[in-house]
Amino acid sequence: MQDNKAKGTDIATLGEFGLIKHLTKNIKLKHSSSNLGVGDDAAVIDYQNKKTVVTTDLLLEGIHFDLMYTPLKHLGYKAIAVNVSDVYAMNACPKQVTVSIAISKRFTLEAVEEIYAGIQLACENYEVDLVGGDTTSSLTGLCISVTAIGEADEKELTYRSGAKVNDLICVSGNLGAAYAGLQLLEREKRIYDNNPNMQPDLTGHDYILERQLKPKARKDIYERLKEANIVPTSMIDVSDGLSSDLMHICDKSVVGCQIYEEKIPVDFETHKMAEELNMNYSTFSLNGGEDYELLFTVPLDKFDAVEKIEDVKVIGHITEASKGNYLVTRDNVEIELQAQGWNPIKE
Amino acid sequence: MQDNKAKGTDIATLGEFGLIKHLTKNIKLKHSSSNLGVGDDAAVIDYQNKKTVVTTDLLLEGIHFDLMYTPLKHLGYKAIAVNVSDVYAMNACPKQVTVSIAISKRFTLEAVEEIYAGIQLACENYEVDLVGGDTTSSLTGLCISVTAIGEADEKELTYRSGAKVNDLICVSGNLGAAYAGLQLLEREKRIYDNNPNMQPDLTGHDYILERQLKPKARKDIYERLKEANIVPTSMIDVSDGLSSDLMHICDKSVVGCQIYEEKIPVDFETHKMAEELNMNYSTFSLNGGEDYELLFTVPLDKFDAVEKIEDVKVIGHITEASKGNYLVTRDNVEIELQAQGWNPIKE
Repeated sequence: MQDNKAKGTDIATLGEFGLIKHLTKNIKLKHSSSNLGVGDDAAVIDYQNKKTVVTTDLLLEGIHFDLMYTPLKHLGYKAIAVNVSDVYAMNACPKQVTVSIAISKRFTLEAVEEIYAGIQLACENYEVDLVGGDTTSSLTGLCISVTAIGEADEKELTYRSGAKVNDLICVSGNLGAAYAGLQLLEREKRIYDNNPNMQPDLTGHDYILERQLKPKARKDIYERLKEANIVPTSMIDVSDGLSSDLMHICDKSVVGCQIYEEKIPVDFETHKMAEELNMNYSTFSLNGGEDYELLFTVPLDKFDAVEKIEDVKVIGHITEASKGNYLVTRDNVEIELQAQGWNPIKE
Repeated sequence: MQDNKAKGTDIATLGEFGLIKHLTKNIKLKHSSSNLGVGDDAAVIDYQNKKTVVTTDLLLEGIHFDLMYTPLKHLGYKAIAVNVSDVYAMNACPKQVTVSIAISKRFTLEAVEEIYAGIQLACENYEVDLVGGDTTSSLTGLCISVTAIGEADEKELTYRSGAKVNDLICVSGNLGAAYAGLQLLEREKRIYDNNPNMQPDLTGHDYILERQLKPKARKDIYERLKEANIVPTSMIDVSDGLSSDLMHICDKSVVGCQIYEEKIPVDFETHKMAEELNMNYSTFSLNGGEDYELLFTVPLDKFDAVEKIEDVKVIGHITEASKGNYLVTRDNVEIELQAQGWNPIKE
C-alpha cells in the first residue's frame, strides 16, 4: 500500500501558471492535425475532410479509483486509456486529448509528476497529442477529467445503433478480469485496514491486477478491423459490463440478442479469482465493468474474416427486438440479460 | 442563503443511465455540424473546411464556487459561459459543449435539474449544442467539467502570440466587477456565519452580483469585430485579472505594454464596493479575475474602427519587450504590472 503524503516539493511554490508550465514543458505535438496545443485560450485542431469525434470522462477519487492501491502513474495512464477507448468504439482514431486535474494540498509536485508521467506514457502508446487542460486545487479528493478527440471517415464511423438481425456479436480479449482485479484489491485492502502489519498478498494475480489498474484500449483491434476491411455494424467498449453494454447496443439498434455463456472469453486468472472468492466467474464476465474490450457486431458474411482476427471471439448473434436479450447458459437454459453494470450513482 | 438539502427526489431512484436519459431527453441539436450528440461512445462533429478549437475547464465546489451563495442554475450557466468565453477569445465561434458533473448524495434530482436548467439556458444564449458528457457521483463536493468546441476560418484565428509593437490594447465592458461581487458575497457570508439570523444585505449591488454569479461571455464583441472586419492581432479573455492576462499576451508575443489607469473601464458599482471595503478600485480592475471580458490588440490603423464598437475601450498600447509591462497611474507614475491573478493553487 502506498503513501502519497511522502515528503516532496510543495506545489504552492510553483503556483498555477508555474505548475502548468512545468508539467507541459516537454510536450511535443506529433500530429499535423494538432495545429496548436497548450498555452492559449484553446487548442486548434484540423481534420480537414474527416469527421471529428469527441468524448469525455470524469474520474473521481473514492468513486472511480482508490489511491490506497492505485499507483498514480497507472491512474494517469488509465484516465487516457478509458477515453481513447471510447474513440476506438466509434471506429475512429484518437488524435488529441485535453486533461484537467484537481489536486488537494496533500499532493506534492512529485505526485502530480507521477500522474503526468502516466498520462504521457499513454499519450505515446495511443499516439495522441496532449493539447490542453486545466490544473486547479481541490479541497478534497483528486479529480481527473479527460476529453479525447479523434477523426474518422464518415463511412467508417460505427454507432451503437447499427446492429441488424442475424449480425454476429463479437468481443475482443476476455471479460471480467478488471473486476476480478478490483475484488482482489478490495479484499487485500480490508485485510490491511484490519491489520496494517499484514502485507497484501497479490502474487500470482499480475494479469487481473494490470487489467484493473492499467487497462488497455484496443487500438490493435481497431487497426486489425481496418486491415481486414471490416466496418462493424455497431460497436461499444465494455466499460459497464458485457450485459449492460450489449443491452445499450440492442436498445439503440432496436434489436434483441442471444449470447452463449460457453463462448464468452474468460481468462484463467479470472476463473481462479472467482473460485477463491466463491463466486461464479460468469458474474464477473457478464457484469464486471472496466474491461475496455471492444464489443461489436458484423454481418453474418463476415464470419470468416472476423474469426481470423486474433483475440476476437464470436459470442452470439442479434435477434428480433421482440425476442429480448438472452444468455444461453452451459446447461442450455435461457436467462434474460440484466443491466447490472457498475453504477457509481446507485453505489 | 440557500439550502441545497431541501426535500426532493433521491437520485438513486434513477441510477446513472436513468439520470443521464432524464437530463438529456429534451436536448435538440441545432447545428448542422453536430452530427451526433449524447447517447453513443462519443459525439460526432463536422466543421468541414474550418479549424476546430477546443478548450476545457474544471469547476470545483469550495475552490471555484461556494454553494452557500451560488444558485445552482447560475452555476450551470457560468460553467458554460466561462468555456465559450475561451472560444471567443480565439476569435472562434463555439458550436458544441460536453458537460461532466459529479454530485454528492446530498443533491436531489431537482437540484441537478437546476444545474442543467442553467446549462441549457446558456447553451441557448450562446447557441451551442450539448453533445456529450458524463454524470457520476462524488464522495465530497460538486464538480463540473466542461469542454467547449468551436470553429473558425484559419485566417480569423487569434492567438495570444500575435501582438505587435504599437498595437492598441483594447478591452470590452468593464473590469473588476466580478471580483467586487465576490468580495460582497464573502463579506455577507462571514456575517451570516457569525449570526445566522442576520439577513444578507445585497441590495443596490445587483450588477456586481450578476457579474460574479452569472457572467456573460462576450459573443456580441466577437460578432461586432467580425462585422467591423477587424481581426485582432492577439486576444485573451480576462479570467485571471487584467494584469495577469495582459502579461500572458506580452509573454507569448514577446512584447511589452503600457496601459493607463484612467482609461481602464470600471463600473460605478465596482467603485462603490471598493469604497465600502476601503480598497483601491484599481486593485479590483487590475487583479480581480472572472470578468470574462475580451482583451485584445489591434493595429494602430484600426483606431477609428475599434473606437466605433460600442462597449470597447482602448486602454494602452504595445511596446518593445525591453520596455517591460507598465501601468501609468492617474498621477503619471509608471508602475510595473504584477501577475497577481486569482490563483486557486496558491490560494
